[in-house]
Amino acid sequence: MHNPTELQKIIEDAITQLAYPNKPANLYEPIKYIMSLGGKRIRPVMVLMAAELFTEEVSKALDVALAIETFHNFTLVHDDIMDNAPLRRGKQTVHEKWGVNNAILSGDVMMVESNKHLSKVHISVLKPVLDTFNQTAQGVCEGQQLDMEFETRSDVSIDEYIEMIRLKTAVLLGGAMKLGAIVGGADEKNSALLYQFGENLGVAFQLQDDILDVYGDPEKFGKQVGGDIIANKKTFLHLKANALIKAEETEILFGNHQSAEHKVAAVTELYDNYSIRNLAELEMEKYASAAFAALEKINIATEKKENLRTLASQILNRNS
Amino acid sequence: MHNPTELQKIIEDAITQLAYPNKPANLYEPIKYIMSLGGKRIRPVMVLMAAELFTEEVSKALDVALAIETFHNFTLVHDDIMDNAPLRRGKQTVHEKWGVNNAILSGDVMMVESNKHLSKVHISVLKPVLDTFNQTAQGVCEGQQLDMEFETRSDVSIDEYIEMIRLKTAVLLGGAMKLGAIVGGADEKNSALLYQFGENLGVAFQLQDDILDVYGDPEKFGKQVGGDIIANKKTFLHLKANALIKAEETEILFGNHQSAEHKVAAVTELYDNYSIRNLAELEMEKYASAAFAALEKINIATEKKENLRTLASQILNRNS
Repeated sequence: MHNPTELQKIIEDAITQLAYPNKPANLYEPIKYIMSLGGKRIRPVMVLMAAELFTEEVSKALDVALAIETFHNFTLVHDDIMDNAPLRRGKQTVHEKWGVNNAILSGDVMMVESNKHLSKVHISVLKPVLDTFNQTAQGVCEGQQLDMEFETRSDVSIDEYIEMIRLKTAVLLGGAMKLGAIVGGADEKNSALLYQFGENLGVAFQLQDDILDVYGDPEKFGKQVGGDIIANKKTFLHLKANALIKAEETEILFGNHQSAEHKVAAVTELYDNYSIRNLAELEMEKYASAAFAALEKINIATEKKENLRTLASQILNRNS
Repeated sequence: MHNPTELQKIIEDAITQLAYPNKPANLYEPIKYIMSLGGKRIRPVMVLMAAELFTEEVSKALDVALAIETFHNFTLVHDDIMDNAPLRRGKQTVHEKWGVNNAILSGDVMMVESNKHLSKVHISVLKPVLDTFNQTAQGVCEGQQLDMEFETRSDVSIDEYIEMIRLKTAVLLGGAMKLGAIVGGADEKNSALLYQFGENLGVAFQLQDDILDVYGDPEKFGKQVGGDIIANKKTFLHLKANALIKAEETEILFGNHQSAEHKVAAVTELYDNYSIRNLAELEMEKYASAAFAALEKINIATEKKENLRTLASQILNRNS
């Protein structure tokens, strides 16, 4: 079994060695670019970790790990177009650098690349791998659709929000775990438990993201603290506050403020008055507990689960 | 064996019966919309025809036929965004009706739907089916990229143009034939010959398209005759003329004209002076002959090939 740092290195090395055709250069350069921007490689590492619970040959899971990372980056390229985002990990987004049309098409071919990686898995697991991957990919698209629709809706409920982040963020973590389990040789029950672990962890992860956006340490957060508040983003915190506040306080959430800083300060104070951070943390812990409960139920030696426990703790206790 | 009309009905019925989730409605409605706009369903019919050369159970090939038709429609949705096209088959394009972001995302999920169809083929042919499909899909993306790049390039050679239409149009016809052959149970040699048949037919098909755009019967063509000339599109005819004309005639091809009608008339006269139509037809016949030669070599009873011969003749002798 490899430790998380070793697994991350396996992924980085494999990404570095990926070969794309030279031509048309403008189709493949954006893929190399986005894939090299880094990030924590959480999803492919999860694939390998899940596989290593059931096999000593981590290489068996590498193609699926690359498929998941390529798919994830494909969604970033297309999401950045839809969100009109200029920057990704501090660098120009693909559509900023190559234009929207090129970004659409490079994204499309990344989807094909994901499928090429997938098709290399052993024939004995090919069908369940495809089924799991396709279901995951479809869920992620549905989540992005809901996220876009929520921007213009004023009646989003907290249940709808949780369902949106489950689809947009969590099913991919669940899918990564399950795919790793399948190629590692897990039975259906253990694969399903790993899916639950990943999906619940994913919801907790996104709730933590919402909390950090308001309460993160500005020194460590890496993004502007309060960015969601400034953008009127319908996060868990926003929706929870909106459900609890008095009519006369809605002006604080939705009205005009003297400046962005004033708005962040006023809304944060409102959140504090209603213990919104605490409520969000309770919600997060609910999903974190469900993740750990699923992990406990997996029928393998408990010491093998240490990597996943550590990963989950890091994700949930991060400050950026 | 079914005749072409019966095969087309099998496809139409299957498309009508396709079920998509109800929610999010804006993600799945565009898929139903574009899939119902019709068209000749040439590609899925080709899949079924190829399969029927080797099996009596045409149903074996239906999933692959749906995958190919869904993929083709996905490329139409994304290409129409890139081309900024308002209409498709006389109706609003998806991005006109639902917006660009929605069209990107519905296209993405159509790619997933294609892969879901593919994953249903018998496990014994799943791997070659995936490999053939992924190679085809990648080629189509490369062709679209080249097509976009040619718009702003002034030094496109005829060889480059043929390579672009091979990728953008022809590999999908080749892939459709080969996929049908594989699921029908053909050996590698026959599958490869059917690929050659489809690909060469595809190049001939696109050259015929270029010719019809200028020399089509306005009553039957269904589009504005001379549209490519008005748009300065680098078709085979344009590139061939540009390679042959005298320096002082370049003004006719590239200069300003009194009106669109004048331009069409002047450029067509120029084409006539250099027998461009004839040269294009010779080029087309070269590919058509290569297609028929590949068909002849396929090792099955010659009467079974009748459907494909008829389809090819219809495609090459069409007037719209």
